[in-house]
Amino acid sequence: MVFVRLLYSNQARYGVLEGQEIQLIEGTPWQKYSPARERIGIERAKLLAPCQPSKVVCVGLNYADHVQEFGDRPLPKEPVLFLKPSSSVIGPGAPIVYPAISRQVDHEAELAVVIKEETRLVSVKEAGRRILGYTCGNDVTARDLQRKDGQWTRGKSFDTFCPLGPCIVDHLEPEGAVIQLLVNNEMRQNSHTSHMIFPVEYLVSFISQVMTLFPGDVIMTGTPAGVGQIIPGDTVTVRIPGVGELTNTVINGV
Amino acid sequence: MVFVRLLYSNQARYGVLEGQEIQLIEGTPWQKYSPARERIGIERAKLLAPCQPSKVVCVGLNYADHVQEFGDRPLPKEPVLFLKPSSSVIGPGAPIVYPAISRQVDHEAELAVVIKEETRLVSVKEAGRRILGYTCGNDVTARDLQRKDGQWTRGKSFDTFCPLGPCIVDHLEPEGAVIQLLVNNEMRQNSHTSHMIFPVEYLVSFISQVMTLFPGDVIMTGTPAGVGQIIPGDTVTVRIPGVGELTNTVINGV
Repeated sequence: MVFVRLLYSNQARYGVLEGQEIQLIEGTPWQKYSPARERIGIERAKLLAPCQPSKVVCVGLNYADHVQEFGDRPLPKEPVLFLKPSSSVIGPGAPIVYPAISRQVDHEAELAVVIKEETRLVSVKEAGRRILGYTCGNDVTARDLQRKDGQWTRGKSFDTFCPLGPCIVDHLEPEGAVIQLLVNNEMRQNSHTSHMIFPVEYLVSFISQVMTLFPGDVIMTGTPAGVGQIIPGDTVTVRIPGVGELTNTVINGV
Repeated sequence: MVFVRLLYSNQARYGVLEGQEIQLIEGTPWQKYSPARERIGIERAKLLAPCQPSKVVCVGLNYADHVQEFGDRPLPKEPVLFLKPSSSVIGPGAPIVYPAISRQVDHEAELAVVIKEETRLVSVKEAGRRILGYTCGNDVTARDLQRKDGQWTRGKSFDTFCPLGPCIVDHLEPEGAVIQLLVNNEMRQNSHTSHMIFPVEYLVSFISQVMTLFPGDVIMTGTPAGVGQIIPGDTVTVRIPGVGELTNTVINGV
């Protein structure tokens, strides 16, 4: 299944992608749902972020090559967690707003996991069943503020700093995906999710030992090497073949 | 005004405290509301956390005496931000669950600010109008995990690690309040909000430069000196005269 969320007659609705058409549904992908009467061509649809997470839990330094480019430090023995607020989430096509108080904003392509049902204290073995599917994420980061604060929260929490989309696919092999990021059609990150230090089911289990995950919550699984700056005017695309492409442009903030 | 949230006929409802009675309301304190038919004595009411924040934004190291007890470090030049997930929020009387994976869980009494309306890029001067009121908060922290991770998120994000309550008062002078914490009726923290490094209106403005705040969102303004361990069986009370007392007991987790 490929789930999308879209603006339809000024309402946020969920739908299922069938070829080039979206079959709208009554309900949500997390509950029982049924086909609605409406259908719309994908090219005419205004897609939104594919879910509305109550929280976005992020994993830092989960690709060895990115750990190295980030400085001379050992690989983490456990996942390093941080949170992005739900207010930072935007969908495909929405602008990333460059904050006036930063001088270095970076892209970070990530595989994003969407949770299916309420999950706490789940084992690694059981974790897969709690996953609805996968989407593309961009953990946009004001790198200068991240370094200055020590705590990563401020630099990663600006409004628009969490693009998600374009859809949720439930049939991806999470450690079998190419993950790429392009700025103005030039490849900047090009890796593979098999290079994650802590794989997806381990992360879901690990996080569920700390906090209850709810349907639609998102786990950002870390970024590979190649992070770099984006500036106003840039077009940024996260590409995960099998999921899709998430494209956003960068604009000046105030 | 003194607002509470309570369980009434198995529904979460808002009310206004009038003497020893709660006048239930239709609507919420953030919108237009009107008195409902129901009233209930405060002693019979099952109080919940007084709001349901979409995010809890916390400020670290905002009292000089606490910065000193936390190690030999300079005072922050800007507020240090971190987030607690909404899943960590509990109300008065609800148990704080001690996680099996921690060996040191600490209390941190804090003045919590409840946001009134959608707020972004607000000036310090305008910030006060965006505040609905104040409540007591306890930034419960697995100190061992906080130190180990470097990033504070995991140690502060466990379910039940954000007690809030018992009510929201709109008439507190935020830099004029005594703030105390008692463990089993023994005073552990005893300070005054005038000792904050960054005052409340500055914090609201600062945070609103980063992320949009929504009605019911909470800002935890930091803890004074005297933080220390709590263990299963303890009863922990945050006391802010003029607001009230927030009491929770600690139980063993799994």
